[in-house]
Amino acid sequence: MPVKKPTITLLISCPDRPGIVAAISRFIFMHNGNIVESDQHSTNQGEASFFMRVSFAEEGFQLDEVALKEAFAPIAKEFQMKWSVHYSRQRMRAAIFVSRLDHCLVDLLWRWKSGELLMDIPCIISNHPDMEPLARMYEIPYEYFPVQKQTRRQDQERMLAFLEGKVDFLILARYMQILEPFFVHAYQHRIINIHHSFLPAFVGANPYQRAFERGVKLIGATAHYVTDELDEGPIIAQDVIHCDHRDSTEDLVRKGRDVERRVLAEAVRLHTEARVLVYRNKTLVF
Amino acid sequence: MPVKKPTITLLISCPDRPGIVAAISRFIFMHNGNIVESDQHSTNQGEASFFMRVSFAEEGFQLDEVALKEAFAPIAKEFQMKWSVHYSRQRMRAAIFVSRLDHCLVDLLWRWKSGELLMDIPCIISNHPDMEPLARMYEIPYEYFPVQKQTRRQDQERMLAFLEGKVDFLILARYMQILEPFFVHAYQHRIINIHHSFLPAFVGANPYQRAFERGVKLIGATAHYVTDELDEGPIIAQDVIHCDHRDSTEDLVRKGRDVERRVLAEAVRLHTEARVLVYRNKTLVF
Amino acid sequence: MPVKKPTITLLISCPDRPGIVAAISRFIFMHNGNIVESDQHSTNQGEASFFMRVSFAEEGFQLDEVALKEAFAPIAKEFQMKWSVHYSRQRMRAAIFVSRLDHCLVDLLWRWKSGELLMDIPCIISNHPDMEPLARMYEIPYEYFPVQKQTRRQDQERMLAFLEGKVDFLILARYMQILEPFFVHAYQHRIINIHHSFLPAFVGANPYQRAFERGVKLIGATAHYVTDELDEGPIIAQDVIHCDHRDSTEDLVRKGRDVERRVLAEAVRLHTEARVLVYRNKTLVF
Amino acid sequence: MPVKKPTITLLISCPDRPGIVAAISRFIFMHNGNIVESDQHSTNQGEASFFMRVSFAEEGFQLDEVALKEAFAPIAKEFQMKWSVHYSRQRMRAAIFVSRLDHCLVDLLWRWKSGELLMDIPCIISNHPDMEPLARMYEIPYEYFPVQKQTRRQDQERMLAFLEGKVDFLILARYMQILEPFFVHAYQHRIINIHHSFLPAFVGANPYQRAFERGVKLIGATAHYVTDELDEGPIIAQDVIHCDHRDSTEDLVRKGRDVERRVLAEAVRLHTEARVLVYRNKTLVF
Repeated sequence: MPVKKPTITLLISCPDRPGIVAAISRFIFMHNGNIVESDQHSTNQGEASFFMRVSFAEEGFQLDEVALKEAFAPIAKEFQMKWSVHYSRQRMRAAIFVSRLDHCLVDLLWRWKSGELLMDIPCIISNHPDMEPLARMYEIPYEYFPVQKQTRRQDQERMLAFLEGKVDFLILARYMQILEPFFVHAYQHRIINIHHSFLPAFVGANPYQRAFERGVKLIGATAHYVTDELDEGPIIAQDVIHCDHRDSTEDLVRKGRDVERRVLAEAVRLHTEARVLVYRNKTLVF
Repeated sequence: MPVKKPTITLLISCPDRPGIVAAISRFIFMHNGNIVESDQHSTNQGEASFFMRVSFAEEGFQLDEVALKEAFAPIAKEFQMKWSVHYSRQRMRAAIFVSRLDHCLVDLLWRWKSGELLMDIPCIISNHPDMEPLARMYEIPYEYFPVQKQTRRQDQERMLAFLEGKVDFLILARYMQILEPFFVHAYQHRIINIHHSFLPAFVGANPYQRAFERGVKLIGATAHYVTDELDEGPIIAQDVIHCDHRDSTEDLVRKGRDVERRVLAEAVRLHTEARVLVYRNKTLVF
Repeated sequence: MPVKKPTITLLISCPDRPGIVAAISRFIFMHNGNIVESDQHSTNQGEASFFMRVSFAEEGFQLDEVALKEAFAPIAKEFQMKWSVHYSRQRMRAAIFVSRLDHCLVDLLWRWKSGELLMDIPCIISNHPDMEPLARMYEIPYEYFPVQKQTRRQDQERMLAFLEGKVDFLILARYMQILEPFFVHAYQHRIINIHHSFLPAFVGANPYQRAFERGVKLIGATAHYVTDELDEGPIIAQDVIHCDHRDSTEDLVRKGRDVERRVLAEAVRLHTEARVLVYRNKTLVF
Repeated sequence: MPVKKPTITLLISCPDRPGIVAAISRFIFMHNGNIVESDQHSTNQGEASFFMRVSFAEEGFQLDEVALKEAFAPIAKEFQMKWSVHYSRQRMRAAIFVSRLDHCLVDLLWRWKSGELLMDIPCIISNHPDMEPLARMYEIPYEYFPVQKQTRRQDQERMLAFLEGKVDFLILARYMQILEPFFVHAYQHRIINIHHSFLPAFVGANPYQRAFERGVKLIGATAHYVTDELDEGPIIAQDVIHCDHRDSTEDLVRKGRDVERRVLAEAVRLHTEARVLVYRNKTLVF
């Protein structure tokens, strides 16, 4: 894959009103930035909100990161913006959590190595030792954190301490443990989970078994940010595949794996490229 | 469309055991039938059940309908079969129920007229007068049955009496009334409804609005047989379409219409070709 | 469907360089326009080209159409823009051409009447009288233009003269006549055709028959702008559907109709909303 | 995955006439076989041909392989059948051919190890040494067969000799060499290739580049049996994915990889389960 030219991306949300795009694009132009991609959205329910993702070439742009932040602050203040800046050269760092099912992990690692997912993976974390050989093949440190019901809080505190300063977001690649609220809050909208159903159908355990019992004609997968409420977080990506009466629960598991890994990889890609904004309990994907 | 050669179709279900296919195919062969299509399925949960759909050319087959039924009875008895026979020449007769939304009705009528749906439509029934001109264009009698909350039972009794002997199954093409249990029982597994979500997600009212609020990335439609429990009947066909944050509830309605009409038409086609068997609360589609 | 607020849309293409977005958004802001939608693209092959579609609310915008064109001209000149302006209140006018197959026409008319396709249809043109009743039901003038091999040029000259000043673009809804180059040039990139294959597979006649013979496992449809070269114009929309060995050519025709009408309607919707830009022999769809 | 019960599968093709199914099912029943799956198809172009795939439980069936072949021979003769028998316990053996692109190989090996693809892989063959570490991880012998233009025939003769008696079919997982006719004939309808376009579009080299240039709105992949004519063999499986003007050729390559590996894996699964019959230049997939 040819290396794409480095870009700087602004992610912005603020109350809607005329002049926002003009102010932002003027700012970029004044400092010699050339916009290469831009997308925006306005909600028109109740008071309108405005969202924007704009990318411009880093080459030729006259401000470094510190100067950019300083120079953009007055504009942000004027329009009451929440905003963040992302340099494509600075890859996000992700910890991948996994239990015993390997299909999502195998797929993420292959895509990562092939250059599809532009991120660093400082560690793989698991409550089982099974995936260590796979991690070793990709030369990624494997951290075994057994979790026990009685010590769950302490176990997760240890994990949290371990991750401190190491990563930007977490990927739950079929990690079969429920994270405590304090843990989730530490990575708000930065933990991506894959659920093996087309939510909100089959929230909770054993979705393939329940899909089989209900006799649905399609099964799916949903990648979402983790919140305190199980399987209720903002949805990033979803897809489905057809099935029929010939499919046993095991066949649904097999077919579903293909959808799970595709949907999770898509969500991770969107997140690493700073394409996802969360608004209320929904996502905007630019 | 070229007329396909007339066929006779047997739909069979019975406890599984060796010799069923041999007995059936021998029966067909002995009376000079040539099998043109055959499909079967065995469940292997608990005691095994066997299901079969087999079609053979009517031309050359030596038994007429009465003789066939008589000759097949001993085989059916030996294997404890539930069975039915369908002649492709004898088109099923369907009443279409509709309220105010016309997209499913328009689509069904066009497909019917173009020869895609091999059925007769003795009447269109509605609780509103709006669709009468459309019915008239296709020269189908339009029966206006207003329904009122207080008189629901009597209203539906009148409808039931009206339909008596006229039709083989019913199509609810976005008919916005809940049918009473006595009505449903009169047409068990013979009322096809289209629900505008991928069930079991968004059971009940306003699925598009709720899909919008949940922020799903795909919306769908489900065609199912009506049972006493709302939106819980055996699913015949389902499909979905992708959506994103740019779609308002109105956009979801617009996009969803395309899926609804496609899924309903597919379910009706399968039913008219005697391709659907109900087992417990699920369908086998051959 | 709720009426969306009127918007003004600019479609722009020019050589790429910094400052374009800033100049355009500043122009809109200075005259009190509020941007509601914006998309852009840069090619980076050879000398870079820039493309943009930007929509802003008409309400509150201080310039009328004449003033807007005058005020924007200097910017357009500075950046060497090709550009056009579209008012959502001014519906595009389309003539629909049809021969004997009705599925695309039926579908377009239903979508148009239901408010999905925001356009006017001053006339339906056909080389056969068959569709006149349908046109009459929708109260659209039906013009019967028989075409003969020997008089093709004159026939099409008469059609062209008839259309003069009446329409903005043409829809070939399975119109089975090849248009002469002089006719095509009169509506460059303004004639939308539906071809019943996933181009560039099966260019030319009888694509379903050839798909059957090749034994493909999916069939498709392609909506494209008509150019001098048969089935070689810029592609606007495409889709496919799965098929298998059980499908006869007639089944492919039946299944394909669903794809054709969906793809054609999508292309027409994109065109009427000024979402399509042609660059070389390709489209950008915003 | 739970181990499925062993089955015996008959693949049959013969001229169509009444009594075939009766004869086959009677044969199975007489020797105490219980049919678990059955599918058939008749062509009705010219003289009709009949095709069948029928599976029955091995447990309880009274004939061993030799006896089965002997006992079935008279039936096969009577109906002029071409036929083969497949025991699910006897896994097919495949050699995987690969060059430098690893996505199809990685995917096949993962699916194979996870139990999705029931086959043995005696060796991986390549004209490059690159994939050896991957082969080693899965403990599969890796055979490096460099190929040179001037010595192509001898090179392929050596490969053919090497494979002699080792494998039942070959998988070209993005193997970038054209096989000589003598090689292809040695494995007629037993070499599966993945082509990275939806054939018959973009036959030959660089399909993604050509798809980009044509501006198609979907790209695809095709798995087919190799014949003497490049990319013209019987198609086993196909699928597509949507794309648009934002996708560079590199993006098409990235998106296409997902389709390629899915389609190839599907074709391999169908082949290993003896679900594919070739008739003329097409496949029947049961």
